Amino acid sequence: MNNMDNKAVNAVRCLAIDAIQAANSGHPGLPLGAAPFAYKLYADHMKFSPSNPKFIDRDRFVLSAGHGSALMYSLLYHFGFGLTMDDIKNFRQLGYKTSGHPEYGTPGVETSTGPLGQGIANAVGMALAESVLAAKFNKPGLNLVDHYTYALLGEGCLMEGIEYEAASLAGTLKLNKLIVLYDCNKITIEGNSDIAFDEDIFKRHEAQGWNVIVVECGEDLDAVDAAIQKAKHSDKPTLIAFKTVIGYGSPKAGSASCHGAPLGLDGVVATKKALGYEYAPFEVPQDVTEHFAKKIEQHEKECAEWEKIRDEYKKKYPDEYAEFEKWHEKPVIEDTDDLWQFDSAMSTRKAGGVMLNRLAARLDNFIGGSADLAPSNLTGLKDVGDYGKDNRLGRNIHFGIREHAMAAICNGIYLHGGLLPFCSTFFAFSDYLKNAIRMSAIMNIPVLYVFSHDSIGVGEDGPTHQPIEQLAGLRAMPNLKVFRPCDARETAAAFVSAYDGGPTVVVESRQDLPLIEGSGRKALKGGYVIKGDGECDLCIIAAGSEVDLAVRSADELEKTGIKVRVVSMPCMEIFDEQTEEYKNSVIPRNVKKIAIEAGSAMCWYKYVGDGALVCIDHFGESGKANKLFERYGFTVENVVDTAKKLLQK
Amino acid sequence: MNNMDNKAVNAVRCLAIDAIQAANSGHPGLPLGAAPFAYKLYADHMKFSPSNPKFIDRDRFVLSAGHGSALMYSLLYHFGFGLTMDDIKNFRQLGYKTSGHPEYGTPGVETSTGPLGQGIANAVGMALAESVLAAKFNKPGLNLVDHYTYALLGEGCLMEGIEYEAASLAGTLKLNKLIVLYDCNKITIEGNSDIAFDEDIFKRHEAQGWNVIVVECGEDLDAVDAAIQKAKHSDKPTLIAFKTVIGYGSPKAGSASCHGAPLGLDGVVATKKALGYEYAPFEVPQDVTEHFAKKIEQHEKECAEWEKIRDEYKKKYPDEYAEFEKWHEKPVIEDTDDLWQFDSAMSTRKAGGVMLNRLAARLDNFIGGSADLAPSNLTGLKDVGDYGKDNRLGRNIHFGIREHAMAAICNGIYLHGGLLPFCSTFFAFSDYLKNAIRMSAIMNIPVLYVFSHDSIGVGEDGPTHQPIEQLAGLRAMPNLKVFRPCDARETAAAFVSAYDGGPTVVVESRQDLPLIEGSGRKALKGGYVIKGDGECDLCIIAAGSEVDLAVRSADELEKTGIKVRVVSMPCMEIFDEQTEEYKNSVIPRNVKKIAIEAGSAMCWYKYVGDGALVCIDHFGESGKANKLFERYGFTVENVVDTAKKLLQK
Repeated sequence: MNNMDNKAVNAVRCLAIDAIQAANSGHPGLPLGAAPFAYKLYADHMKFSPSNPKFIDRDRFVLSAGHGSALMYSLLYHFGFGLTMDDIKNFRQLGYKTSGHPEYGTPGVETSTGPLGQGIANAVGMALAESVLAAKFNKPGLNLVDHYTYALLGEGCLMEGIEYEAASLAGTLKLNKLIVLYDCNKITIEGNSDIAFDEDIFKRHEAQGWNVIVVECGEDLDAVDAAIQKAKHSDKPTLIAFKTVIGYGSPKAGSASCHGAPLGLDGVVATKKALGYEYAPFEVPQDVTEHFAKKIEQHEKECAEWEKIRDEYKKKYPDEYAEFEKWHEKPVIEDTDDLWQFDSAMSTRKAGGVMLNRLAARLDNFIGGSADLAPSNLTGLKDVGDYGKDNRLGRNIHFGIREHAMAAICNGIYLHGGLLPFCSTFFAFSDYLKNAIRMSAIMNIPVLYVFSHDSIGVGEDGPTHQPIEQLAGLRAMPNLKVFRPCDARETAAAFVSAYDGGPTVVVESRQDLPLIEGSGRKALKGGYVIKGDGECDLCIIAAGSEVDLAVRSADELEKTGIKVRVVSMPCMEIFDEQTEEYKNSVIPRNVKKIAIEAGSAMCWYKYVGDGALVCIDHFGESGKANKLFERYGFTVENVVDTAKKLLQK
Repeated sequence: MNNMDNKAVNAVRCLAIDAIQAANSGHPGLPLGAAPFAYKLYADHMKFSPSNPKFIDRDRFVLSAGHGSALMYSLLYHFGFGLTMDDIKNFRQLGYKTSGHPEYGTPGVETSTGPLGQGIANAVGMALAESVLAAKFNKPGLNLVDHYTYALLGEGCLMEGIEYEAASLAGTLKLNKLIVLYDCNKITIEGNSDIAFDEDIFKRHEAQGWNVIVVECGEDLDAVDAAIQKAKHSDKPTLIAFKTVIGYGSPKAGSASCHGAPLGLDGVVATKKALGYEYAPFEVPQDVTEHFAKKIEQHEKECAEWEKIRDEYKKKYPDEYAEFEKWHEKPVIEDTDDLWQFDSAMSTRKAGGVMLNRLAARLDNFIGGSADLAPSNLTGLKDVGDYGKDNRLGRNIHFGIREHAMAAICNGIYLHGGLLPFCSTFFAFSDYLKNAIRMSAIMNIPVLYVFSHDSIGVGEDGPTHQPIEQLAGLRAMPNLKVFRPCDARETAAAFVSAYDGGPTVVVESRQDLPLIEGSGRKALKGGYVIKGDGECDLCIIAAGSEVDLAVRSADELEKTGIKVRVVSMPCMEIFDEQTEEYKNSVIPRNVKKIAIEAGSAMCWYKYVGDGALVCIDHFGESGKANKLFERYGFTVENVVDTAKKLLQK
């Protein structure tokens, strides 16, 4: 052990608690307890380039226990990632890089964390991505991609279902370059974790195919070092449990009360005294600064080694390197006619399957799968094999029946860089993974969600499988594009625009839908006139399977002399971003309106004003789909009737 | 083994596949494979009364693998629960009791299942409820409550995060009367479960504190019998793995293709032939009918024994029995003034904590807790102890950091009967448990959800912890009441009406909110005039922390001669159910309107028409709450400005 190392650990600790104290808000428990092993990891194990935080073959680090952000910022500050002392002093304040939980975009932060369990699942995705890229690009003696993914978590993440799901898949897939650092202090907010969680975490991870290492004293830097070293040579993912004391050194050490509340000024002073590190708030002594500078130099050197490899690789394998670079660029889907080619009625899930394959043919780094519903979601990619422990180049991922982890793993795959992930399940079960979609949306990353079985059109499986309120819930989510296409051609629009911004959800029908005359590229505007471009007495706006009903109802109404326009609205979010002029040209202001959708009315009020709604605000039933549509008023008769009443108002 | 038993097993199997074939829809794989152990359980282990499916001390059975519904209906038919052959013949059709997935309300179905993992968590809740009631009411030699809870699941449930969470808590709590029957066929929809799930399920459950029994041949009724017998005497929850063959007896036995698609007519004939049970569709031979009749008689006898115990108990312990009965009645919260007594500004989470305790003081069977956030949610019940393996009478449940299982466990506690559960977490994390809330809503049961930290008012914790779209998402859910109270008195309204119907969500502020003049009982109408009852030029509608802003803005506007009404809208769902007359008297038709809420605008269009919205349709940021409110326009200045512009339109 080295005295300077110990001092550096205390420097990391104390800058963290100074920041928390200044904010009078934050979580001192984790930084004080976990600093030794986190420091050791950053100092002597991780590969990173502070001058280039996006260095492509860096080791990834995910603070799954996101509330320990002060630890992370303290590390990033000391290791020179570009956080300023002003950022540290303004921890948790508006306009600084040191937000309450780590946010993607801050240099050195690989993913936004906070909601427990998301981070570890992201890390599984990153390790998965590494395994793919390594298999694809590495050449003998020239490893372009060869790094570890580390995640730090505590009991909180370990109790979350998503962690179990992610751990189970990581074990099955033998993602041996994933190393999870468990801050084992056995304290959660309500007290000793045993009151709610006495499971044998080590045995459980072993059962899930993990290597488990226990470090009895988390303050022992040599033991920490040996454990990480050992983990690097495992043929399985590794959980290293570092036994620590929450709030180490503070007057409240070992108790839940130091988890999430500042220590108070006296507490900070007492802690620094106990640690033998009695510097003023935010003071970093010269020897500490120099110590970290040396460490930074070592790190930069290691990365420079990689650049040599890269240069040689580029020379020897120019085509492969060009592809490697292409995979890391923002994807472009060239909008050519073949993408829109559909000649017959089909379910939009089937069309979605076609589009997934069209994308996969153009984008060699497009990869994904379903939560064990591929034969129903129709998401299988043809002729590209299954990803697995024995085939890192397969592009169909069997996520298992783990919706939540699936989505968070896709976030991790995308965040790693180099791959474009999609995932899929029944739309009703989007509820299971909602928080992971929210994380895609908060980070504004283009993960693609394919949800089939979009409405009561599911039929016999009944109310638990029939989405009603899911459309409203997702349409309300900022940054998320929700497509509900009316036919195969509109389905194309969803996929063509999948990389135009943040995450996309495609909501697909189980049942066949006819091709609607006039559908196609216009769908890229989110909403457009699909029938009746001129003057009208009535405007019917619909989405998904209800566009056909709208068109048929319009035909019927026109027989009685009522001029009807039908607007197809596959994606409200894109439509809402169009110019006022365009929007008014599609949905005329002074005309009565009806919205039709087999889902919550809530989404539609903004378009129809005092118009009428043919929607569903109750749960469905088990029965044949056509009988359900009929029972709930999705008939030409009811729409015509509704229209006539509305026009007479 | 008994030949008649084997014939009965095949009768159960074949009625199930006949039903699926008639529907041309459904899942034959599970019924064919799992029938032997399910039959044995129903025939010789479970305690139930077919003539009284709600018999209070019945063993509970939960088909967590809800897609195997045909098995359940076949069992319920043969064991005389009141399903008719007409129901069986109309499996999955509108208007029959035999919906695609089991639905609460069908006699013999304890809970609606289908979304995987929900059922097993419900079962944990039922076993927990049993442990409480047994501890509370049983007397030496007179066990009013003494039953098992069984759940049937397959790999699907076992991969879901919620199952891990529920299993971990069940193990910690030593719920030894929970017996889980695992239909171990190693096949899921995408194929052999090993491709995605090679974890050692047995070892994992042992690590979680379970007893594990493996039955190598799931068709061996004697082995099945012995295993269940053994499980009944465990001091831990038990997982019995029955090794079975999916689609046993059918031409597709052992393959994923028989999981969820009908066998076809030829397949049904071939299956019956292979099973040696060649009867016509829906034919039940006389000897089978007689066999089941004998079993039914035995079951009724066992239940009659309980009635004797009950009668003696009633005689010896009339007060306790009266309480037992009271606990099983629909709860009534007498609306007395003390429930509304609040004298000062406080956060609505604090008021919620007060109300929880007021309810707990009146309802001795009120029980619940938080997902490890009790000190933040302020949900601790005072002086009633903690529920745990050593204290079954404690009423604070430490659910651990398991939001999803927590909610599904509460569904199970309620469904068991006798207890009134609540649960809690941060509102942002309601996303984690959304599907379980949906199950409360589908079943329309009054589980109480208490979510604190309701908006950007969370402040420093940042966007991951700041709800934005959650209000819209939950308000769109049928059958669910969502309360967002403006102050302590409106908080009372949420709790006072908690048992007026289905589930209730109370969304509470982190920050202090002043008492608003005029708030109180009127909130029971969902929305009401809180200021400015007369003629007005403008109507401002707001909810939660924004009602205070609305009132202050109205004061400012009135200084300029604009007459303003302020409507407080703590619960849209209740308001929407009021008479048109009342609704029009609160929100005047021909007056311009503004809605103010620190959340998605989507919910508000229906009230404001072409009015204005002061809402948030983007994610938040980390910073002090007051700075965030200011930045996003929640200021008197902005509201006044918005109002003036609106009135000039």
